[in-house]
Amino acid sequence: MQTFRVGILGATGIVGQQFITLLQDHPWFEISALAASDKSSGKPYGEAVHWVQDSPLPASVAEMPVLPAKPDLPCDLVFSALGASAAETIESAFAEAGYPVVSNASAFRMDPVVPLLIPEVNPDHVDLIEKQHTRGEDKRGGFIVTNPNCSTIGLVLGIYPIWKRFGIRRMVVTTVQAVSGAGYPGLAALQIMGNVIPNISGEQEKIENEPLKILGKLVQGRIQPARMQISAQCNRVPVRDGHLVSVSLELETKAAVEDVREALETFVSPLAEYELPSAPKHPVVFLDDPFRPQPLKDLRTAGGMSVTVGQLALCPVLHYRLVSLVHNTIRGAAGAAILNAEWLAVSGYLQKRDA
Amino acid sequence: MQTFRVGILGATGIVGQQFITLLQDHPWFEISALAASDKSSGKPYGEAVHWVQDSPLPASVAEMPVLPAKPDLPCDLVFSALGASAAETIESAFAEAGYPVVSNASAFRMDPVVPLLIPEVNPDHVDLIEKQHTRGEDKRGGFIVTNPNCSTIGLVLGIYPIWKRFGIRRMVVTTVQAVSGAGYPGLAALQIMGNVIPNISGEQEKIENEPLKILGKLVQGRIQPARMQISAQCNRVPVRDGHLVSVSLELETKAAVEDVREALETFVSPLAEYELPSAPKHPVVFLDDPFRPQPLKDLRTAGGMSVTVGQLALCPVLHYRLVSLVHNTIRGAAGAAILNAEWLAVSGYLQKRDA
Amino acid sequence: MQTFRVGILGATGIVGQQFITLLQDHPWFEISALAASDKSSGKPYGEAVHWVQDSPLPASVAEMPVLPAKPDLPCDLVFSALGASAAETIESAFAEAGYPVVSNASAFRMDPVVPLLIPEVNPDHVDLIEKQHTRGEDKRGGFIVTNPNCSTIGLVLGIYPIWKRFGIRRMVVTTVQAVSGAGYPGLAALQIMGNVIPNISGEQEKIENEPLKILGKLVQGRIQPARMQISAQCNRVPVRDGHLVSVSLELETKAAVEDVREALETFVSPLAEYELPSAPKHPVVFLDDPFRPQPLKDLRTAGGMSVTVGQLALCPVLHYRLVSLVHNTIRGAAGAAILNAEWLAVSGYLQKRDA
Amino acid sequence: MQTFRVGILGATGIVGQQFITLLQDHPWFEISALAASDKSSGKPYGEAVHWVQDSPLPASVAEMPVLPAKPDLPCDLVFSALGASAAETIESAFAEAGYPVVSNASAFRMDPVVPLLIPEVNPDHVDLIEKQHTRGEDKRGGFIVTNPNCSTIGLVLGIYPIWKRFGIRRMVVTTVQAVSGAGYPGLAALQIMGNVIPNISGEQEKIENEPLKILGKLVQGRIQPARMQISAQCNRVPVRDGHLVSVSLELETKAAVEDVREALETFVSPLAEYELPSAPKHPVVFLDDPFRPQPLKDLRTAGGMSVTVGQLALCPVLHYRLVSLVHNTIRGAAGAAILNAEWLAVSGYLQKRDA
Repeated sequence: MQTFRVGILGATGIVGQQFITLLQDHPWFEISALAASDKSSGKPYGEAVHWVQDSPLPASVAEMPVLPAKPDLPCDLVFSALGASAAETIESAFAEAGYPVVSNASAFRMDPVVPLLIPEVNPDHVDLIEKQHTRGEDKRGGFIVTNPNCSTIGLVLGIYPIWKRFGIRRMVVTTVQAVSGAGYPGLAALQIMGNVIPNISGEQEKIENEPLKILGKLVQGRIQPARMQISAQCNRVPVRDGHLVSVSLELETKAAVEDVREALETFVSPLAEYELPSAPKHPVVFLDDPFRPQPLKDLRTAGGMSVTVGQLALCPVLHYRLVSLVHNTIRGAAGAAILNAEWLAVSGYLQKRDA
Repeated sequence: MQTFRVGILGATGIVGQQFITLLQDHPWFEISALAASDKSSGKPYGEAVHWVQDSPLPASVAEMPVLPAKPDLPCDLVFSALGASAAETIESAFAEAGYPVVSNASAFRMDPVVPLLIPEVNPDHVDLIEKQHTRGEDKRGGFIVTNPNCSTIGLVLGIYPIWKRFGIRRMVVTTVQAVSGAGYPGLAALQIMGNVIPNISGEQEKIENEPLKILGKLVQGRIQPARMQISAQCNRVPVRDGHLVSVSLELETKAAVEDVREALETFVSPLAEYELPSAPKHPVVFLDDPFRPQPLKDLRTAGGMSVTVGQLALCPVLHYRLVSLVHNTIRGAAGAAILNAEWLAVSGYLQKRDA
Repeated sequence: MQTFRVGILGATGIVGQQFITLLQDHPWFEISALAASDKSSGKPYGEAVHWVQDSPLPASVAEMPVLPAKPDLPCDLVFSALGASAAETIESAFAEAGYPVVSNASAFRMDPVVPLLIPEVNPDHVDLIEKQHTRGEDKRGGFIVTNPNCSTIGLVLGIYPIWKRFGIRRMVVTTVQAVSGAGYPGLAALQIMGNVIPNISGEQEKIENEPLKILGKLVQGRIQPARMQISAQCNRVPVRDGHLVSVSLELETKAAVEDVREALETFVSPLAEYELPSAPKHPVVFLDDPFRPQPLKDLRTAGGMSVTVGQLALCPVLHYRLVSLVHNTIRGAAGAAILNAEWLAVSGYLQKRDA
Repeated sequence: MQTFRVGILGATGIVGQQFITLLQDHPWFEISALAASDKSSGKPYGEAVHWVQDSPLPASVAEMPVLPAKPDLPCDLVFSALGASAAETIESAFAEAGYPVVSNASAFRMDPVVPLLIPEVNPDHVDLIEKQHTRGEDKRGGFIVTNPNCSTIGLVLGIYPIWKRFGIRRMVVTTVQAVSGAGYPGLAALQIMGNVIPNISGEQEKIENEPLKILGKLVQGRIQPARMQISAQCNRVPVRDGHLVSVSLELETKAAVEDVREALETFVSPLAEYELPSAPKHPVVFLDDPFRPQPLKDLRTAGGMSVTVGQLALCPVLHYRLVSLVHNTIRGAAGAAILNAEWLAVSGYLQKRDA
């Protein structure tokens, strides 16, 4: 694969930092531009950022100037770690200006012509790009591709091997989510240390709606949403990273527990042949240990790109229960977007722009 | 009410400590004996205990000798904070010896002749006592009364106003539970700090089974269990006190959300007329605030004896969702037992023994 | 004692909330006005505040309107929980307008005519008030009285029995401080959960300077600072409340460890005869237990108004070491100011203003 | 360098786990034997261990059988992660049997013929080995080498560049220490979550004594301890890894702050020429940032093998203050022992034993 120069929008936030961390040494993508809000713009990145990753800020990046988030960045594509409201105007502007925008923001996730992409699950949805007006007749214009909400990815990947084999009609979901999901500064220590907050604004709606689009069928340029009912309630707990998603689900086709378990255990990434740098061979890792998955033990599975699943059991109300764990800032955010960009690259949607 | 002398079995554990804390200044009960395992026995309580309450160890109790847990304690009834396996033999021995045993242990909860009591919910179940063989023909012998598991109480009290008015057919339950529920020493700091553990041994079964007995009907000396399906999955989080119970439920009789809410808001303790010292007027407190209930803010409601309920919402899968919060060592353990004893007192089941 | 109406400046912050909590049921002071910044002003207090105390917001206060912090509040004195920069102008304005200002802010602590008061330590310093130009010739005008920084109080009270008996020449101080000391929102959870931050802006200077004034002598209307060298380094840790102050000290007069210990153990408040509502009989409580003082066990001693001291040992470098623990928002802030106001009351410095 | 087969004594504990983690992919040492107490012995390691590292248990090791800690292990040297009392007999037995014992235990640290080694500081002390009776006349027998206590290393390395250049007469030390220092299970979550414990058994004595030996001079086969006074007080805080050591020190030779700072900034490992796999080029990293060192940001410097130092300031009592941070299970334990073994290897003290 050739290499592409990438810009990062919202580079100083927690997801922006995760992009920088994950793109160090990436074989296909090289950071060429960092953009953030006006108050950071002009400063060296190392000064503008309040770095909260546990690996040190790479020296190469510390010296890069923070640029304004305007569509004249020197790069071939942009990753967006913007908040939802900023994303709406800024991502549009970049797409209009011809940039591929690979976004972690929620602004365009439910837009009918924007792929809401998990490459292992709905790789074909990427072709929605051709429906975007910015794409143009020559199929060389800009476009927007999104990844799901962090908890949605944990849910959809965790149940995907079951859904694929047996179908799922209904899911009751309860999440136990980490603090980094709220960005920086996010929650005050006094709010969450020793506490649980049983609501995360907007999260429940995303978990109830996004999976229907992701699991939908692309038919004649439109997505027919999956027919499924989802109920979600979200809890924030004093943990740094890692969202647990507790699911009770009803199958479409009845199945014995050994078969459900086998579906989880034997699932292999359909992308394996492409050798994408960030794609784990086993995006879903089933754990037998009766006390897992746990953030402390399992969050770094496949560098944070696999979800880990455990607690498979019969559900006395629906059919089965399980718990899925996702690294919310890697597979749930920056890593998801990078994998999307890798899929775009092998799908021929990326190209060099003039330097 | 006359006063009764009470003994505490398992006095050095975390629930035993909570008994001591709550019984300070109790108008009806006076601590006259502390019993614990052989290794503590003989020492002054203040030496034997690793006190972890946030209020200081009462000086009066610090000097009391720890006695062996043998059925010759100088008291009129015993509270049991024993573990399940010790409880099985020791509680039996005390009942055989004529003591009322008011137990927080799980050993006898599902025994068909032992009341599993929440006085606001199933006060009449207390009469099961008469079926216990230790009670004797003169109805003056010993007996055992139990309170439910800490999460079960949070669940049952939290949904009780709805169950009573509309009936409930099915519940999908997910818990987010505090560390003190595991007793002392319980979890190692290295296990749980910054972590979530998605399983609590035996807890799921208790939550799925105990409510059926509690909400059952006492007919001709037998309990007909409630017909209801319950599914539970439990998570441990790094919080000191307070279990949250997230419930999705299906009503028997359909009801509008305003009516469900009104049932919660207007619920008043059916015990109000008895003026029990530990019984809150509102054992269920409904909170409108979209970010509650929270352990930090709500755990001390009515001194920890009320559950707080919030997050009432339509459930796209079953009918409604809500979250209930219980103080696990007060309403979920020692406080529950003390309230049970108060109900025994006004029900005429307690009497003075010779000193 | 007659009752006085009190206003609270900066009522929505964390220290303001602590004032409200501690003044509930105060026998001498009644809250009659709550003032905060312009953005809160006009709202009911319950709406304007982000309440983070673990006891619930008192209903009476929730309905009170938040007033602008202008010197026309309906009260006889004001407590100030303002930040340092706001305090400089607002506290001056209130003093000019004739109000007694009992302040927790740092703005005027080192002003030569403003008492920096710990009533058990330097009760006579209160007479500096007469030197304030706002006091006027008729000795009826407004004035400002301050309490020390939260860590300073823990230090000064903890070593005071030793200082009084043997004198102290030098102290090396290292603190381990709780998150609530930074106010709300204060530190982000992502900054401090699982972390230690080895610096607290401005804190070290306060600990090195304030004790010299507090322990100084009032001679002819001027304070001669104590001659003592203090070195301080401060650490923030993920604990909600409670500052520990580790001290190594050099005596002026040599003393055996039993004598130093006896000085600590036998210290009784010199204010005992005045029966001030917030003054503990033992403002310094010495603990023998080799693993104390601890925030979890000792913070609530005397309702948070006593410091607890332990770890007394020979120091191989200076003479002795010890650790003192202070409840930073009670004895270290709001409780300190309330005790100051009580001392002003018995000293005749408070009077009713026209309603 | 040839490769050596290594055994690990106390392999299931937290330091034993850290040995396993750090020895994965070590170019000189290959794990050939895991030993632990009798209750683990015979099981596969993966079953016997309660793994608490955040990287997963290596599959190769999971299958290895746990052997009894008897001196017939198939290896060329042993690393000891034993507790002090077990170490006394077991380490002796291994040395008697001809094994080099590279120990993290405290049992023999102060033994006059046992090196207490930090290779960057006192590399020549390794020659004490020749004084050990087990070494034998042919200089081919077993021996014991130890590394210091985890906090001692943080202290000694952090101040070493200053000590070397200017000398140090006295140090007042206060530590803020992580939970992993107490091993597993170590502290109960209920003891330390949201709390500080101001004492760590035995730790203060180690910090006061061990540096004198480490910084002592080896003269004619004996160590003349450094002349220095050290005073230490230790605090445990709810942090997983990382000990901070706050030091106030008095120089032997007066020096300006820029010179002290330059000593810290320019310090380079005297071992650089040997290219030891675990030896960082900069074992002391000086940080300018006014809010560092912090465990969250700095613990992984040089893979946890460098200490980070900051907060350099004039001390009003002695001469200077600073704060040093050490990764307690890496540079403070397993990593320290591995570096010691590397130094033994290049010093010719290791040799292949018959397989």
